[in-house]
Amino acid sequence: MTPATPIDYDDAPQILDNPTSQRVARVAGLARRQARSKHGRFLVEGPQGVREAVRWAPERILDLYMTESAASRHPGIWAEARAAGLYRHLTTAEVMAAMSTDAQGVLAVAAMGESSGADALARALEGARLVAVLTGAQDPGNAGTIIRAADAAGADAVILLRGSVEATSPKVVRSTAGSLFHLPVITGVGLEEAIGALRAVGLTILAADSRGDTDIFEAEGSAAAGGLLSAPSAWLLGNEAHGLAPEALSRADTVISIPILGRAESLNVATAAALCLYASARAQRA
Amino acid sequence: MTPATPIDYDDAPQILDNPTSQRVARVAGLARRQARSKHGRFLVEGPQGVREAVRWAPERILDLYMTESAASRHPGIWAEARAAGLYRHLTTAEVMAAMSTDAQGVLAVAAMGESSGADALARALEGARLVAVLTGAQDPGNAGTIIRAADAAGADAVILLRGSVEATSPKVVRSTAGSLFHLPVITGVGLEEAIGALRAVGLTILAADSRGDTDIFEAEGSAAAGGLLSAPSAWLLGNEAHGLAPEALSRADTVISIPILGRAESLNVATAAALCLYASARAQRA
Repeated sequence: MTPATPIDYDDAPQILDNPTSQRVARVAGLARRQARSKHGRFLVEGPQGVREAVRWAPERILDLYMTESAASRHPGIWAEARAAGLYRHLTTAEVMAAMSTDAQGVLAVAAMGESSGADALARALEGARLVAVLTGAQDPGNAGTIIRAADAAGADAVILLRGSVEATSPKVVRSTAGSLFHLPVITGVGLEEAIGALRAVGLTILAADSRGDTDIFEAEGSAAAGGLLSAPSAWLLGNEAHGLAPEALSRADTVISIPILGRAESLNVATAAALCLYASARAQRA
Repeated sequence: MTPATPIDYDDAPQILDNPTSQRVARVAGLARRQARSKHGRFLVEGPQGVREAVRWAPERILDLYMTESAASRHPGIWAEARAAGLYRHLTTAEVMAAMSTDAQGVLAVAAMGESSGADALARALEGARLVAVLTGAQDPGNAGTIIRAADAAGADAVILLRGSVEATSPKVVRSTAGSLFHLPVITGVGLEEAIGALRAVGLTILAADSRGDTDIFEAEGSAAAGGLLSAPSAWLLGNEAHGLAPEALSRADTVISIPILGRAESLNVATAAALCLYASARAQRA
């Protein structure tokens, strides 16, 4: 726990104390997909996510809101935001509660930025060696956890294909624990477009699926298949209930399975993603 | 999709159609921890979990409830339950909705069984080679996902130490996707008791923590440390926000970290658990 530190609020405006103001309603409204898409902005809730956004993507932050008690618990966030010249607002606990119930006193409104479509995808893939492609994940917690695992495994980008859960929904953002601001997370592209872009930069397309006949751990152990995993790669990851669709499976160079040693029918998609991405990271590093 | 099959309901009672009956209230009440603990029973919601419970632990199922449409979508569950001599009940959609909103028409009431305390722990550890120990996980989705990953990695048991999320809360049960019925999930023991029992059966105690100075992947690669991972082991896993408590860390033979190759501060605890358990499974198999 960082000890509470006196904060210089000199340059901060008055404390926002009206929970029924238009501003509060506008911020709270970003919990709805339609409002996010109309305004091109989304919510970052909680100290961890906001800290990473302030540090790694300050240009995307439009407004930072903190309660006084949160500002004294997290003086570093306030100071970094100030140094970056961000719009900072102190709020009462009531105003914060009216804007978000999951913010723990720390909330940012961020711009979606240039993360959608073919051009954004091409920029993200320049020089990429490891990419995760979500082809149909629907659960926000899974999608966020995959983005976080991809970041940890040193991936260069994550692509959420059209038909996946929306990348800026509050629960996805929270589950990424800030990783949403560490690497490009590209949306608004379809399967064919993504495959084309991935092949254009020379990435091998691997599919993670229980129907694969290459066991990922045998692959790592053998020289031939170890070569497979050490190549710059993109991993296609499926839907929670249905796995990969046939059209995705058919576009992969190799379909790779994770061995199930107990009685489980399958792995959670985020668990499978982490095992695959780390297997590639390990092989590429070796 | 399994085609709908005519089902022989001859031996089934009349369709339960009163959503305000005492029975319905009693079942719905098991969503509350206090009621679960008082009655020693819990809910298994959804076809996947119920199918696994019927198949692997029918002796724990006290009652099975299915709507008519779910019974025709999942004739196998009904038939297996009948063969096992379970109490089966058809319900109207209204009755099902009053009992659970997450059951997709398939619900079981199960007995907690002999899964708590020192004796249950000793039985579960007989001959064990791989065990996961949750020392303070609070998020039900994480706990369930770890149980599922432990099952997939071939672990012999999972221990949820006192202070962890409750193993039979509806979201934990759903997140295990049936794995709760595949391997012993032991509760009601504290850290010291668990460490004693693990050591008594000769297990090495490994801790997964970012403060570890042994990198799990280097450990796998080196002969010496590979020997470490191939030994029969129990993995201590920490809390989502705070990691492992000092008293848990200090009881480990080796503290092992997962390398973070990108900018993420840490891994989700369920992701870390899966990487650790599969690393052990791989080393033990090699």
